[in-house]
Formats: sequence, C-alpha cells, structure tokens
Amino acid sequence: MQDGQLSLARLLEHGSRIHAASRVTTWTDQGPRRETYAELGRNAGRLAGALRGLGITGDQRVGTFMWNNAEHLAAYFAIPAMGAVLHTLNIRLFPEQLTFVANHAEDQVVLVDGSLVPLLARQLPEMKTVRHVVVANGDPATLEAPAGVEVHSYDELLAAQPDTFDWPEIDERSAAAMCYTSGTTGDPKGVAYSHRSIWLHSMQVCMSDSMRLAPEDTALVIVPMFHAMSWGMPYAAMMVGTSLVMPDRFLQPAPLAQMLASEKPTFAGAVPTIWQGLLQQLEEHPQDISHLREVVVGGSACPPSLMHAFEERYGVPILHAWGMTETSPLGSVARPPAGATGEQAWQYRYSQGRFPASVRARLIDDHGNEQPWDNESVGELEVAGPWIAGSYHGGADPEKFHDGWLRTGDVGRISPDGYLTLTDRAKDVIKSGGEWISSVDLENTVMSHPAVAEAAVIGVPDEKWDERPLVAVVVREGHQVTAAELREFLADKVAKWQLPEHWTFIDEVPKTSVGKFDKKRLRAFHSDGKLDVRHF
Amino acid sequence: MQDGQLSLARLLEHGSRIHAASRVTTWTDQGPRRETYAELGRNAGRLAGALRGLGITGDQRVGTFMWNNAEHLAAYFAIPAMGAVLHTLNIRLFPEQLTFVANHAEDQVVLVDGSLVPLLARQLPEMKTVRHVVVANGDPATLEAPAGVEVHSYDELLAAQPDTFDWPEIDERSAAAMCYTSGTTGDPKGVAYSHRSIWLHSMQVCMSDSMRLAPEDTALVIVPMFHAMSWGMPYAAMMVGTSLVMPDRFLQPAPLAQMLASEKPTFAGAVPTIWQGLLQQLEEHPQDISHLREVVVGGSACPPSLMHAFEERYGVPILHAWGMTETSPLGSVARPPAGATGEQAWQYRYSQGRFPASVRARLIDDHGNEQPWDNESVGELEVAGPWIAGSYHGGADPEKFHDGWLRTGDVGRISPDGYLTLTDRAKDVIKSGGEWISSVDLENTVMSHPAVAEAAVIGVPDEKWDERPLVAVVVREGHQVTAAELREFLADKVAKWQLPEHWTFIDEVPKTSVGKFDKKRLRAFHSDGKLDVRHF
Repeated sequence: MQDGQLSLARLLEHGSRIHAASRVTTWTDQGPRRETYAELGRNAGRLAGALRGLGITGDQRVGTFMWNNAEHLAAYFAIPAMGAVLHTLNIRLFPEQLTFVANHAEDQVVLVDGSLVPLLARQLPEMKTVRHVVVANGDPATLEAPAGVEVHSYDELLAAQPDTFDWPEIDERSAAAMCYTSGTTGDPKGVAYSHRSIWLHSMQVCMSDSMRLAPEDTALVIVPMFHAMSWGMPYAAMMVGTSLVMPDRFLQPAPLAQMLASEKPTFAGAVPTIWQGLLQQLEEHPQDISHLREVVVGGSACPPSLMHAFEERYGVPILHAWGMTETSPLGSVARPPAGATGEQAWQYRYSQGRFPASVRARLIDDHGNEQPWDNESVGELEVAGPWIAGSYHGGADPEKFHDGWLRTGDVGRISPDGYLTLTDRAKDVIKSGGEWISSVDLENTVMSHPAVAEAAVIGVPDEKWDERPLVAVVVREGHQVTAAELREFLADKVAKWQLPEHWTFIDEVPKTSVGKFDKKRLRAFHSDGKLDVRHF
Repeated sequence: MQDGQLSLARLLEHGSRIHAASRVTTWTDQGPRRETYAELGRNAGRLAGALRGLGITGDQRVGTFMWNNAEHLAAYFAIPAMGAVLHTLNIRLFPEQLTFVANHAEDQVVLVDGSLVPLLARQLPEMKTVRHVVVANGDPATLEAPAGVEVHSYDELLAAQPDTFDWPEIDERSAAAMCYTSGTTGDPKGVAYSHRSIWLHSMQVCMSDSMRLAPEDTALVIVPMFHAMSWGMPYAAMMVGTSLVMPDRFLQPAPLAQMLASEKPTFAGAVPTIWQGLLQQLEEHPQDISHLREVVVGGSACPPSLMHAFEERYGVPILHAWGMTETSPLGSVARPPAGATGEQAWQYRYSQGRFPASVRARLIDDHGNEQPWDNESVGELEVAGPWIAGSYHGGADPEKFHDGWLRTGDVGRISPDGYLTLTDRAKDVIKSGGEWISSVDLENTVMSHPAVAEAAVIGVPDEKWDERPLVAVVVREGHQVTAAELREFLADKVAKWQLPEHWTFIDEVPKTSVGKFDKKRLRAFHSDGKLDVRHF
C-alpha cells in the first residue's frame, strides 16, 4: 500500500530544487526585483532558522502583515514547513478586528512590511501575545515597540542564519496556515488549512478543470496573500514551477499596467474592481495585453460587461470562479463544458462555475430539504470536501457546519451539469409569502436605471407576507428620480409579486471593510427609524 | 480543519452526475458502441448489486479478464466503490503466472470478455478461490465451468438489478485495486492501490506538468486496462469529464487508424510498438491525425526517431513518460522546462521526464550512497510518494523497499532540474572494474549496424574486472557480419574500456511475456555452456 505524507516542507524542497530557475518578481518603486525559486528556498531555510531562534516551537502562530512580495512568499513556506502556523493578517481589517484576530490566534511573532509599520503600530499595544516583530523591506527603527515586544530587521535576522533547515516530519492533517473571515456579523472566524488540504488544493489549481496553472506560465498575483491564500496560487506555482509576479503595494491601475508591459504575465488573478480599473487604464493608455492567456476573477460576481470587454477588445478570456475563505478558496470554476459555443458558452461563463470532484455540493431550502439540480430550484449552497472547512478555529459559530457540510450563506441554483449560479446571500434573501426574492437581482435591476448610482435592498418585516423588500437608492450626481418612477421602471422587469412597496433615498450605501454593501447597518438604520421610507 | 475522504464511490458519483454527457465509446466489429457517463454510473450501480448478490463482501477480490471496453470501465468503478478490490488480470501472462496471481489474490469472481473465454477456460480449473465467472460481450454457454464454479451472463445479471447502489463509506487508505507485475524473476508480485492513491494520481494525470487530461479531450486508451490501470486514464477521465474511446480487442494498426478517423480523439496513450505499427499504417494509408493534440508513450523507452516522425510528419507531439506498476504508474513526464526550444527541448523530451511534486526521487550507488543530480552520476533510481508502493501484497520481495523508498531496478542519471534519463536495468548493468557499463547503450550501438537485427548484452564473470560484457547478436536476414567487424564498428562509438571482448551469434533473443529481452534466460544459456562464444 502507498504512503507518503503531503507536506509543505516537501513542496518547498521540490519547487526550490526541480524548479530552481523559476522566478518570483517583486514590484518596487525602482521596478522589478527578481529572485529564483532556488534563492527562495534558501531564504525560507534562513527564515525558519531565525524564527526558531526567536523561540517559535510546535504549532505556534506567526502572523504576516505584508503585501504580495518575495518575503511574504518565503514566510508562506518557512512557517508551515517548520511546523508552525502561518497566520496571514488582513491589513484592511478594522482596527478592533485586527486586534481580535491576532489575540484569538495568539500570534507570537509578526512579520511586517516597512510600508505597513504605521498601520500595525497603532494596534500592536493591544496584541497581547506578540513578543517579536520582524520588519521586512523597511527600517525597523521606524517602529516604536511597546514594552515586552522586540523589533528585528528581517534582513539582519536572515543574514545570521544558514540557508538550510532541518524540516521536521509533520502529520499531513496538522494546521499549516490560517486566515480569518471578515464577515459582517460577529467577530471574525479563523479558518485553518492543513498541509494536506493545501497540497490537494494546489494540485486542483493546476488541473485542467480549474485554473490550469502551468510550468510555462508567469502568474501576476494581484489578489492579496492575506485574502484566502491568494486563491492558492503561490503554493500551486511552487508545485509546477510557474513564475510569479508580485505587485507589492502597487495595486493601482497604472503600475499594474506597467507590470503587464514589463513582465508579460500569461495568467493573473484579482477581484472585479481591479479589472474594472485596469480596463479604464487601458482605454486611456492602449497597450497589448494578449500575453495573458486567461485571467481568473472571483471574490464577488464578475459583471458580464467586464468579461466581454476583456475578451472582445483585448483577446483575454476572463475565467469566473467562486470560493470563500472557508473553501481554501477554490469552490467552482466557470469553464464551459466540452462542445458549448457562442451564447451558450457565455451563459456557462457568467455562472459561478462547475464543481471539481473534490468539492461536493448541495442546495438546502428553509425546511432542510435538498433541492434538485434543475437550474431553477433555489436553496442555500452547502459544500464539503478535503479542502472545505469542517469547523472554525476554537469551535466558533458551530451552526455554520452540520454533518460535515459547510453552510456557505450563499443562495443560488445549480444546473443538471453542475454549474452554480448564485442569486443572493442567505441572510439578505427576502422571504416573502414562502417564496424567496433575491435582493441582488432587485439591486441590479434598480441600478440599471440611468439615474441610480447605487441601490441596496433589504427585507423588512411584513404582517401578511413575513418580509417585503425595501430599496435604498443613491441617486447619481446631477440626476433626479422618484420612487414612483423607479417602480414604474421595474414594472416590466420583475415578477409582479416581487415589485417593492418600500423605498428610501440615502446619500451612500454603508460598506464593510472589504467594500461590500453592509446590509446589517442598513437594517439597523431602518429598525432605529433613521430612514425616511416612502410606502406604496 | 478540513476532512473529506478520497473515495472512488465519490468519483463515480461526481463523474456520472456532473459529466453525465461525457461518453465512453467501445470499438466493436460493427463499429463504435456508445454510452454516456450517466449510463456508466447506472451500470456500475447494477454491477455492484450483482456482485453483492454473488456474495462479494468486505475487501474480497474480483478479477477482470477483459479488453478495454465499457464493461471493464464499469467494473473499474463498481468493484472499488462497493468496498471490494478490483484485480485486473493480465491476459498476456504465461498460463502458470495467471493461475498464480488469481490464487495469490484469492479472486472470488472473475469477469471475462466473451472473446477471452477460451484463454481463461484453460486455467480456470487451477484457480482455487474462483466461485463465479461473469461473461460480458459474449455467450456464457461457451464456457464449460469446472465443478464448483457458476457461470453467469453479465447482461442478465445486470438486468435484474436496480441502477443505484448504496455505496458504503470507505477509509481512503483501503485497497481499491490491484495489479501484478510480470517481472522476469520469481513469481509475479501484487501491487495494491488505495482509494487515496488513485484519487491523487488521477488529479496528477489532469495536471499541467503531466498529461493535462482535460474536459474537452477525447482520449483513446490503447494501453490495456490490465497494464498498470491504463496509466490512470480511466479514473482521471471520470474526474474531469474526458470522453474515452476504448479499442476492445482491435489493437492492430488498421482498426486503430479507423478509430482515429471515426472518433477524432485529441489524446492517446500506448507503448512504442503500437505507435511504430501505426506509423507504418499511416505511411501506407495516409490520414490526417492532427486532431491528436498529444500522445503519451511509456512502458519502454521511446525511440527518438518515432518522436520526430509523429511530430514532423503528422504534427502530433509525443510525450515521453516513465513509470511502472509499482508507481501507479505515473513517475515522470518529459515536458521540457519553460523557455527550452529547438534541440535543447528535444533533449529534454528524449529523457524519461521530470518528477512531479508527489514523486520523490534519488539515485543510489552500489554502496548505498546517494548520487548527485548532475546528469552524469549514475545510480539505481529509488522513488517514494503517496502513489508509490511501499510494499508488495502479502509482503513479497521485501528487499525491493527500504526506509519507505521503492527500489525501481532502473539505473540512470538525473539532471539538476529533475529530468531522469534511464540507461539500464540494475540487474543488467555490467559492473566492470568499479564502473558501470550500460547494457542498453551497448545494445543500441550494436543495433545501429545495418547488418544487425537484434543485439542483447549481458555481463559475464571476469577474474580481473568482476564482469565484462557479452554481446549476443541476431544477424539481419540476407546480411552477414563478423564479431571482428562489429568490434571495429564500435571502436569509435564507445569508450575503449567498454569495448566488449565476448561475442556470440544467436537465432533470436529470448523474450518475456510482454516482449522484453529475457536476459535471465540468456544468462542461463551462457552459464549452461549453450552459447558459442568468440573471445578477443
């Protein structure tokens, strides 16, 4: 019988030897800075030695507060491979959330980029377990450490270490890394990834039914390494020798366009907002980007217009994908089935995608009943599999899991051939007279009116129907529109029973730390009587 | 933390639902016979019910004595998914080997193709544990069963069963399938594959650094399903929805050419002999085969001339790969590294290929020392990993394994970037004065003489040098050549100390059941004094 543990030490050993010549290129204000995977391997060895020297043992957590760069990549390998747990701290969390997650994970050491020192410094006094801060790509003297915390230079620490490390044997089900979700309800929840789950997920990222990351690719990794492990690209790259381009803090359209021109990546991954910005940049400053064989878009639904623009104007196919922190994150990828062409293929590509063999999926309605895959029946999506979380760190929020399935909180439908289309968040769906109304569909329809800048829809209590939709509208600057006019506009676009009776006009939709509509606050405004609502 | 067992029941469930429209096409004397993966799933359910009805429980072994066809494919899934163990019986084994493996595995039931009934019938009386024989694609009445053995019709058995089966939960490290090696020394050895090892191997087959089997592919699976699980293609196909074309017993060049024309597969896998035959067929009956994006060749070293012929005359790249029954079999795949072009790329492609992350490799010399990867130092290849055997069934031949590593019995070198070049079998290498002489290199050089049809080289005892090479030459019909002329021919082609002193002429080189040079018998001829040797 076969054995062989799946471990990140083994992955590092493989990539830095067999793919020694592959490169990680980090963008700086002086242009590209390059390092081979052989050098990366040696730096990871040095970093592990340095962390051991700072007292890291067992499965202690080491936080990273960093951009996408070669030093963060070395931490991605050194920390898990030495048996410790990599905790990627999201630099965009609200201050109190950041403190919460560092304390909850009991981070012992934090690696920080020089440019992020001021942001970390504000919360450091509240981080109770942090004993050492290591400053990379910057001057450690800029950090005034609270009592009990020692500050170190990344370069000096590494320079004092040998470039090899005696990686321990690790059970593949041990935690390798963790990431906290930044939900809108309650405290952030920690998701731990095991060596095994990361290994399997990395294989999937290189598979033909997913991103097809390949040895001949150069991947521009725009999605932050503190967001669901950069969608698994760094680990997958090491597995097959894909070269990486890391944008560091240069995430604006202009420098991204420069990186494209300079490094000619063949693959890239980012949320829709980034691509929208890049599209505008390209319209103003035309540039050939056909070296991109494909780009993957996830994090939130990709507007079809964006997909068409990239494909038709620039010859770059956008690959739509769905996932979440709890799913490592690869959940589904929208490659059309063999033989689909034209409009049919586009319909598949607009969807959230098809599930790979390692991701089991089902739809559950309000009464706990499994719904058929007929592309019509709607339910909450539940998933399970070897890289899907089965619980949160410390057992938080146990009601998100049952019978080994993760309740995703996403509502949608699935086609007979396994393509997922999401229509709402479970907590945002409006339950009216036993039927579900998608708040997202309503929002998109209202926002298609030329006078509307933004529209958020929430369910409000209703004696007869349980809930009915309330539309909160932000009018576009220089435009005017009334609720009656918007109702009239919707009349032939949505089912009659879905037509909203409650309307309000606001200055802006409240947003979460990651820029999504914060409907929790909108609901609070409503229940506190702070919204001026017009009823029909 | 993530969980989720890797199981073939789950793989069947996934493939037959999400890839319901993908097809397995079986070649018959009336042309193609087609079945969807949805139908395959239902047939697998029926077959599992039928086998349970015949009394199969727990991890009992069920043998298959079949060609590549839809019925064999159903058995590939039904048997492991129900918790039993699929034992693919090699129809090309010598009779006494066939009896040995069926008895050693304790096969309870054997599924047999109608056309193979006569071959099985001869050995059936010696198969002590077989209680039932199920005849597919043929008439069960043609089989005269020995006492205590019941004969059934596959079609009738399945017709009586429901098309669903309540697949049990199975630990992923349980045995799913087994295959015996047909080595030249001793009894065949059983290699067991676990659900986990097959799952991981299937992912690898679809990865960018291996065969890249994809949803849009149609794969012609020529390599028999009783040879190292058809190189993993059937399971990988179910994972991503690749359609399959199964040649059944029609393995001659003419029907293969017909299948190419009719089914237009995009991928195929077979040993070099098959491609050589197909090449000749194509020369005589030209046909466009450019629908093949790539074909994988393994089993024995692929002659560079064959690779050039397919690529340059037909636009079909040959992908060279190495593996063995003990390695599931994917060990290494010869995709050149990013950036390699022209002659450099060809050199990489001639090699046995690069190791994926899940396959660890090392070279060990006579004294047990690990050799460097400098593409010069030679040693016996040892491999380890999650789909590499760690022992044989029943603990046979324990000296083939040590410290979790498999001794492959292959001798070669590895380049710094992880490309393997095999130069000989460990038992055939000639150990002369502390240096190793590759028997294969010598054979190839002798065979490049126009008057030589075949040449086999063995080591014979030598007082001064321990061993020296003996060359056994088969002269090409209508040609004449002397040993002295051949020595002269070699003089500027091999190192002086390697030049053989011992020569003999024979009518033919003895072969094993799978057509390889049987050097064991040649050595016996020599030690028995049966060879007329000329010494220089």
